[in-house]
This record gives sequence, structure tokens and C-alpha cells, in this order.
Amino acid sequence: MRIRLHCRTFFLAITAPVASHTAPAADLSGEWVGQITGPFDSQYTAQYNHVALKANDGKISGLWGVYVVTGNLTGDMLSLSLADARGTAAGMLTGRAAGEEFDGKGSVIPARRANTATSTATAQPPQDVTWKLTRPAAPPASPQSYNYEPKSYYGIYSAGEPPALHIFPGDTVSTRTMDAARDASIPRHGNGGDVNVGPFYVEGALPGDTLVVHIVKLRTNKPTGRQGSRFNAHAVTTAYALAAHYDPDFNGNWNQNQDRNIATLPASPGLPHLTIPMKTMLGCISVAPPGEEQYRGTDLGVFGGNLDYNDNVEGTTLYFPVFHPGALLGMGDAHGAMGDGEVVGTGLETSVDVTFTVDVIKGYATPQVRAETKDYLISFGVSGSVPESIQLATTQLADWMKHDYHLNDSEIAIFFGDVLKYDITELVDPHFNVVAKVPKSEVALLNK
Amino acid sequence: MRIRLHCRTFFLAITAPVASHTAPAADLSGEWVGQITGPFDSQYTAQYNHVALKANDGKISGLWGVYVVTGNLTGDMLSLSLADARGTAAGMLTGRAAGEEFDGKGSVIPARRANTATSTATAQPPQDVTWKLTRPAAPPASPQSYNYEPKSYYGIYSAGEPPALHIFPGDTVSTRTMDAARDASIPRHGNGGDVNVGPFYVEGALPGDTLVVHIVKLRTNKPTGRQGSRFNAHAVTTAYALAAHYDPDFNGNWNQNQDRNIATLPASPGLPHLTIPMKTMLGCISVAPPGEEQYRGTDLGVFGGNLDYNDNVEGTTLYFPVFHPGALLGMGDAHGAMGDGEVVGTGLETSVDVTFTVDVIKGYATPQVRAETKDYLISFGVSGSVPESIQLATTQLADWMKHDYHLNDSEIAIFFGDVLKYDITELVDPHFNVVAKVPKSEVALLNK
Repeated sequence: MRIRLHCRTFFLAITAPVASHTAPAADLSGEWVGQITGPFDSQYTAQYNHVALKANDGKISGLWGVYVVTGNLTGDMLSLSLADARGTAAGMLTGRAAGEEFDGKGSVIPARRANTATSTATAQPPQDVTWKLTRPAAPPASPQSYNYEPKSYYGIYSAGEPPALHIFPGDTVSTRTMDAARDASIPRHGNGGDVNVGPFYVEGALPGDTLVVHIVKLRTNKPTGRQGSRFNAHAVTTAYALAAHYDPDFNGNWNQNQDRNIATLPASPGLPHLTIPMKTMLGCISVAPPGEEQYRGTDLGVFGGNLDYNDNVEGTTLYFPVFHPGALLGMGDAHGAMGDGEVVGTGLETSVDVTFTVDVIKGYATPQVRAETKDYLISFGVSGSVPESIQLATTQLADWMKHDYHLNDSEIAIFFGDVLKYDITELVDPHFNVVAKVPKSEVALLNK
Repeated sequence: MRIRLHCRTFFLAITAPVASHTAPAADLSGEWVGQITGPFDSQYTAQYNHVALKANDGKISGLWGVYVVTGNLTGDMLSLSLADARGTAAGMLTGRAAGEEFDGKGSVIPARRANTATSTATAQPPQDVTWKLTRPAAPPASPQSYNYEPKSYYGIYSAGEPPALHIFPGDTVSTRTMDAARDASIPRHGNGGDVNVGPFYVEGALPGDTLVVHIVKLRTNKPTGRQGSRFNAHAVTTAYALAAHYDPDFNGNWNQNQDRNIATLPASPGLPHLTIPMKTMLGCISVAPPGEEQYRGTDLGVFGGNLDYNDNVEGTTLYFPVFHPGALLGMGDAHGAMGDGEVVGTGLETSVDVTFTVDVIKGYATPQVRAETKDYLISFGVSGSVPESIQLATTQLADWMKHDYHLNDSEIAIFFGDVLKYDITELVDPHFNVVAKVPKSEVALLNK
């Protein structure tokens, strides 16, 4: 259901007025969005791919996602053969022009999301499919800047959430995360906590791509911020948790001064004048999760979500795997500061004004979320336990080094053996998050 | 067996020539080392306490560890009554002078190591014991400096290891950790890896105290250092570990330049010119473990050992619980650098020249090892799993805040909620180690 809602949105998008780089239907040359709908992933779903075609006297060549395409265009009748990277036949599509688009039927051996050249898995049987070729939305002549005033917030990560704004790679958006009091009258979708603004539909982002989000500016827009004052059970021993005497009237409302970049706690007997440096961060930042999956706002996973990393700050760039056309970027749950692990179940909870830019890396998907700060390349590891999160974070960072810097396993191991750092970022939400990172000063010494 | 060896060593120490502050046996006033031997801890062992007595016309008063002492000295016949902090009778000791010492028999309700005033545990029955009062060894007139050339190394953490050198609080020792080639002819005790120099017997340190070790200087004394180049199974996913192709001929011998503070790896295809900053650290630093426990040199626990913390560097101060008279400090397994978690099973393995000073905090034992660097107060959490280590490290740091800064549970929680940091220090040895730490810049704002 949610997917169908989403697909409708997508088609609305691609039937927007076409710009100069599009061509009449009879000329197939150029870029397309390919859609193949069939019984994939145990259900009837659409797969989307970047398609690049070249037409020469009716002979067609090009790429459809990971497939190599050859074919013929005769009048408005199109026939395409797909082959995999090794030249093995992978499908046959036939159809015809329909206005600015092409569509038809065919038979396809389902492709996996990642390149399967090294996979030893048994090939799947061909499936009957329908298909479409539509032109991608045309970008504006120059990057745009938007001031987006939220018209709704959402508390469930899902591809079914309708896009709040369509933007293109290179565009900049200024908006703000939800403040419960100020935004009491703004509609809120879903009943999950950690509510997000968006989603922002990034034109040109398709499954198998990586969405790049750069946080240009992040400043709290509230003078106070609330924080919990009881330890979560994952942070302390059971003996400590049972013996602890918490003050039910403890005042955890910090005063925030973003200009001086400090927060001050109301005096208590043991903390008569506690002042901390602010480090304003986004607790939640996400794309829509894979397929028809839905998660409450407090959750986190390969799609990001409630990552609660205290270096997701102004200047940080995040990289997300794209699971749906447009990626569907959202953000929320800002903190004025937060220690590692979010050990009291909250950060210094606040709302923020945020400005970000987006970009898309086509044809390469990061397996989980990554980030880059001034000083570090960072890999997130979200899982059901801290030890698994350590393994996932380290492994993804190792794969990154292999892919981008062409290191072999021995080189990665000795490199990490001396320069790897871990951060324990999230101990208290439905999944755990550990970050593995390497200093960019050392990465600068590698080949690229 | 090991304990008896150790006790013999201790008695040799305290029968050394006495200095001016000691008194004839007939005058009980002043400081003593109290020894009560009985069927404690399910075996016949000695408990040691600091004892401070005052004699006035044959009436005796004072403290014997946590006990309040009253009694009488008649000629050379001594009788002492012990009471706990609440005034409840806890034992009766009788005996007589024997040269510079007193000894005798009696009956004692075993005391726990920590203050039990808040414990609800059932009191234990009285036990028949023997006892001794001996004068502590007299410190030199001014702190001493020693250049200790190792005469043996040891690879098993145990109170049975004979002391290499007796030192006093305030003394400074310069020595070096083992280098397998250079030290091939020096005897090595035990068959454990990660061999240590020492142990150094710190006069005045008794069980229930805290040993303070400040690392004054730490420099590698070798031009090269070896490092592993394969990931440990705890650091990466099983899929990665199974698919990895390691080069059996990979050259992991770094060139170290301590003066320039850099290490350089021989060129390999992916790492043609890798240079890293050195951060010379002690992988192992320890006191003797409790009771008759013995652990191989690669292990770690409440006694320290192979903590492998990459901030145990020049300038760091460590705090150890004392389990045996003299504490029995040792160190080894130096690394020129090491990433978090020691993910390849080694650091940049080297040997070092090390200079350290010691001190003793009497009557207060840290539950596990702690440290202090230029920037952080640090609590180690050693256990059988990373999640438990996180809980132990956080809890010990919270207890430290309670004890030293008089914070209540709510205050500690909100403080940690914003300023706590974790380091994952050791993933690959028999136990795991996670560090919890708070910045001293924030601690400076607390009451003390």
C-alpha cells in the first residue's frame, strides 16, 4: 500500500514539464529512468534504474542499471535485449512509445541490488514483467535555495510518507526541526517519537545510489532544552540501577546560549554552576527504509534514523544508501549537546534551524550510513547488539577503504590497527550504534 | 603456595633495620602493620591492615583497619578489643611483645574489604585467628630515584612473583620493558605472553589502599616495531573474516623515529608512503591480582594487566586497587601506536624506556583501575563482554563522582548525559576493556 502511494508520487514528478535536454519519444538517446515491475522480493514491486541509451539508425545500445542493453527502434515499436556483466542473456523487453514515455512487457531475470559478478548464488528464473522508460525530471538552470516552512512532521520512517518538497542535487534547503510547543498546530503523521521534518524528494536519486547530505548550518532556536536525569539500563550495572535514588523533582531544563555556544544547568546542590559547551547535533537523519518497511521515529537502521551521533553537527556530510526514488530525506530530534551512548535516554533536547545541501552518487550504494567530518571518515554500525555494531562498523569502513583506496586486506588491517577509533553513539534506542572512524590526515596518505 | 612465598618476602621487608620514628616494643604508640591470619575467604589467609595506636598509662586506643581498638598493655602482655564502625564487638586479640613486634591469638568476626556500614549482609561468625603487629618499613629521608636494570621478567600476574625492587611512595624508577632479542639471556618467569618488568614492591601499600602510578617518561628504545596485519574475529563480521585474503608475506615492520615521533611502514602497493604519529603507550600495567589468583600476561582484570589503552602514555596517572602488601607493580607490552580495540591483535609492538613515580592512597580502594590524563578522568571496565564493560566503566566512574564530588544520582546522570565519552580499548584479549571518561574541564566546575 505505502509503496503504491509512493509510486504515484513518483510518476507525478516525472511527468512535470520537460526541459531542453529531453527529446521527442522517437529519439531514444539520452538518460531515462527505467522501471521494471514484477514479482520481485516475494511480492509485486517496481525496480528503478538509471538508463542511458544511444540510438543510431534505429539500432539501440546502452546500459539499464547493471544490464547491457541492445535493441531496435522501428517506428514507435521498441525491442530491447538485456545481458548481465558477463554477457549472459538476462531479459527481453518489447513495447512502444506512449507520449513522452515508452512502456511494454517482457521477461527479466531479476537483478540484485549490488553487483553480483562475484556471487556464487544460483541465478533466479526469468519473470514476466511490465516496464516503463520515462525521462528524469529536468534540473533548474542553476542550483536553487529553499526556505521550507514545515507543513507537517512525521514520526514513522516509511516510503509511504508523501514528499514535502522536491529538490535537485546541488540545491540548498533551510528549514527547522519540530518544537512541540511552537508546532502544536502543525499536522503530525504517525505516532512514533522523534518526529522528523520532510521528507525531501531528491530528483535523480534511485535505489542503488548514495544520497549525500551536507549540514551547512545547525543552530538551536530555543532558549531552553530539557534533558533526562536517570541512567538507561544499558549504561550502568544492574546493582547501580537498583540502588540509585533519583530526585523526581530534579530540574533538567538547561538554558542554551547558542551565540556563546554554552548551556547552563539550574543550580542543584552538587552542580551549583554547571556550564557545558554546546555541540548542536541532529539526533535523527534518514532516508526512507527499504521496501515496505516501517519504523517508529526512535528507531535506527541501514536507512539512518535515530543514529544519535554527537558528531552529526554543522559541517558534517552524511552518505545514505538510497532505497526508493527520491531517497526521501528527513531529519529531527536535535540536541544542544549529548554525551556518548545517550546514557540518560535523551540528549539536551531542543529544536534547530538547519540548512543542508544534497547531492547524489549514481550507481554506488553505501551499505549503511557513512559520514565525513572535518577530521574523520566515519562508518556507522547499527545492529541489535554492541558487539555486532562494532563488527559492522569496522567492516563497512574496511569495504570503503577497499572500494575508494584500493587497499588489500592486509593493508587495511595494519592501517586500522594503528589509526582506527570507535565511538559508542547509541546505547538506549531500539537498535545500537557504534561508529568506526579513521583520521583524514592519515587517509590523505593513501592512493586514490 | 604463592601467597606464602609472598608473605615471607613481606616479613623480610618489615624486619629491615628500623629508623628513628619506630619505638621500643613497650611503647605501642604510632603506626603498625596489623596482620590477622585465619580461615578467611574459604582458606587460611592473612589480612593486612594499617593500624594506628595511642598508648596512655597502659590504656590503648586507636584503629585497626576499619575496626576501632581499645585495650591494655600490662608489662609485655597486650589485650585488644575490636569493634566495628557501629560499636558492635568484632573481636578480641591477646598476646605479647616479641622483640620489635607483638603477636598472639584471638577471635575475630571477618571484616570485608570495603566499608560495610550500609551492607545488609548477615554478619559472619567469629573465627579463631593468630595476629601480628609489626612496624612499617621506614622511608628514606627524601624520595629516591632508581635506575633498575631488569634481572628477570614475568609472564604470569600473581602475588607469588618475587619483588624486583622495594620502593617507597614518592620514589622514582627508570627501567625498561622487555625486548625479546636484547633480553634473550634474562630469566623469564612463567609462560604467559606480554611479559612484564618488576614487580616493584611499594612500601606502605596494603590491601584496601589505592596505588598511584604516574608515567613520567615513555620512549621507545628500538628503531623498528612489528605489527599484525590480520583482523581479529571480534573486530569484523564473520563474512568479512571468511572472505579476507591476507598476504602471508606482508611486511608489518614499522620504522620508528621517536625523536620525530613518527613511524613509517615499508612501501606496499596500497600503502606506498604510510607515516603515522607515534603515541607510545604501555599495553600492560598491573598490580598482583587478588588472593591466590594467577593470570597469563595477555589477560586483564581488576588488577589491570593487559589493559591496552592507547592513552596509557607519558603523563598519564593510573590508580590501582591494592590486593597484597606492596601492591607488586609491573609493566610491559609497549606499543609505539595502537588503534582502538587492538583490532589486529597487536599494537605497533616495541620496547620502551619508562620512568614512573608511585604514591599510595591509604584506606580507599578504587574498585577497578582508573586513570587521569591531561584532559580526562578515566574509568576502566574490564569484563567478559563489551556490553558489561560499558556498564562497569560507567558505574565505576559514577561511583567516583559520588565519592569525590558528592553528586547525587540525578546529578551524575545528567552530567554524564552530556559530557561522557567512551573508548573501546581492548577487543581481542581474554577479557574486554571499555573506558568511560569525563573531561577535566567539566569536572573542574564540580564541588570537591
